[in-house]
Amino acid sequence: MTVARRHVLVIGMGAGDPEHLTLAAVAALGRTDVFLVLDKGPEKDSLVRARRDILDRHAKADHRLVGIRDPERRRDVADTPAYHAAVRVWRERRTDAYERAVRDELAPGECGAVLVWGDPALYDGTIDILDDVAARGGVDFDYEVIPGISSVSALAARHRTTLTQVGRPLHITPGRYFTEELADLTGSGGDIAVMLDAHQAFTRLPGDDMWIYWGAYVGTPDEILVSGRLSDVADRIVALRAEARARHGWIMDTYLLRPCRDDPAEEPPGA
Amino acid sequence: MTVARRHVLVIGMGAGDPEHLTLAAVAALGRTDVFLVLDKGPEKDSLVRARRDILDRHAKADHRLVGIRDPERRRDVADTPAYHAAVRVWRERRTDAYERAVRDELAPGECGAVLVWGDPALYDGTIDILDDVAARGGVDFDYEVIPGISSVSALAARHRTTLTQVGRPLHITPGRYFTEELADLTGSGGDIAVMLDAHQAFTRLPGDDMWIYWGAYVGTPDEILVSGRLSDVADRIVALRAEARARHGWIMDTYLLRPCRDDPAEEPPGA
Ligand SMILES: C[S@@+](CC[C@H](N)C(=O)[O-])C[C@H]1O[C@@H](n2cnc3c(N)ncnc32)[C@H](O)[C@@H]1O
Ligand SMILES: C[S@@+](CC[C@H](N)C(=O)[O-])C[C@H]1O[C@@H](n2cnc3c(N)ncnc32)[C@H](O)[C@@H]1O
Repeated sequence: MTVARRHVLVIGMGAGDPEHLTLAAVAALGRTDVFLVLDKGPEKDSLVRARRDILDRHAKADHRLVGIRDPERRRDVADTPAYHAAVRVWRERRTDAYERAVRDELAPGECGAVLVWGDPALYDGTIDILDDVAARGGVDFDYEVIPGISSVSALAARHRTTLTQVGRPLHITPGRYFTEELADLTGSGGDIAVMLDAHQAFTRLPGDDMWIYWGAYVGTPDEILVSGRLSDVADRIVALRAEARARHGWIMDTYLLRPCRDDPAEEPPGA
Repeated sequence: MTVARRHVLVIGMGAGDPEHLTLAAVAALGRTDVFLVLDKGPEKDSLVRARRDILDRHAKADHRLVGIRDPERRRDVADTPAYHAAVRVWRERRTDAYERAVRDELAPGECGAVLVWGDPALYDGTIDILDDVAARGGVDFDYEVIPGISSVSALAARHRTTLTQVGRPLHITPGRYFTEELADLTGSGGDIAVMLDAHQAFTRLPGDDMWIYWGAYVGTPDEILVSGRLSDVADRIVALRAEARARHGWIMDTYLLRPCRDDPAEEPPGA
């Protein structure tokens, strides 16, 4: 007799538009017994609402919700030698919490799921955590990843532009790395998509040869889009961003930078 | 009285798995009157089949199919000064063909669509062509882009890994650029996803500090996945690739390269 395994699904839910769920994600939602929900404290209202709407529409009627408490992280040690140790401890605790949830909240043969914003492959920790849980060997389960539409794809689609130019790379980067390594990335002549940028790195770009496609709350009813030559629109983006952030209490934005081409006739559309 | 406009949808169809269609794509397929199909000559059987299956399942019963002839491209001038002129002529002709199709095959108020493999934002020319058609002003239409799951997202999901490490960039690059600029991209410590690589650039990477996640025909019944330390698995990938290519007559593969971390306990899973 084989013992049924626990199964965990990591489901990409898209980054704002509920219609960006894939058919695979819809099917996965429909076969989930238990949703594991990382409780990050008071979360942005509209993100909580987006998740709830998706569950209302696609989860089976008798699904269960299990909260996982996000362990406290020592913020006071940032940029000190203790930082890495603190991150390691925090990561261990988070692994503990997921391990407990998979072991205690899922019966063998049941299916659990984590709904991940956007694509689980982009700047999200869920897959790493499940790897860590699996590596410990403390609970028998397998898992599967359902890719999702990322905020970067959604941004490009809403601007009706591509993320790549023929023969050139695309760099997707956190704002912080970009700020430090500006020259390296811009040197390739490729496009640069910046995420997780609390400090508007685009305002520190030298010269006047970049095009920007910016979007906040992309795919949601609050979406704001701006595009244009960076030097023309940077101030407007900064102002819009501050205003939206004040109004919502938080902001979620991302942008694509593209070097202007030599031939003015071949400038990005919208000029 | 307002005159109804023509509407064109660029629909990302995912890169192999028909379940990767989004709900937005399914809705778009269902409201399309005319599918514009670029006729690239004898196309890969299974790609044609994937498109046909999607239309059978999701398009409305009375949709029309319109072929667009891909204009001849002079291949004899590659790497000569005439190259850019030849590309420009070819691009003009392709714009002509799409402009004609939108004008003559779509009635005002009708909805046309182009089904694009993967995500239309990644290394696909459809959006640029429609921009060119719109810029000419010869036919009145508007258009909309529905993002899709890219082959890179699909690859990561099947390997159950991420495309990004905390705080690091992801570079998505055509094989050709990667071969030329290897050092630049590997220098960032970020992940590198290589597409459109006919020459297995990964075999020319120096050193032994990379992890590779490789996949061919990802998401299709013919899918092949290999991962491991590059030096351990490169030969196997080369052999599998050659064998699969001979068997199918063509290959479609992509891979992710990730620098191995210093701490061996933190190596990518699967070690
Ligand atoms: C922790 S990352 C997660 C990204 C997610 N996994 C994805 O695929 O988009 C969060 C960052 O994604 C970007 N982001 C996510 N959703 C967004 C949206 N709807 N509009 C604009 N940016 C968004 C922002 O840059 C934000 O800082
Ligand atoms: C012209 S590009 C188009 C990419 C597409 N727009 C996307 O989002 O994936 C074609 C390249 O995508 C990659 N590719 C597309 N589908 C794939 C699949 N199912 N498996 C592996 N690689 C794939 C290959 O590297 C191929 O050379």
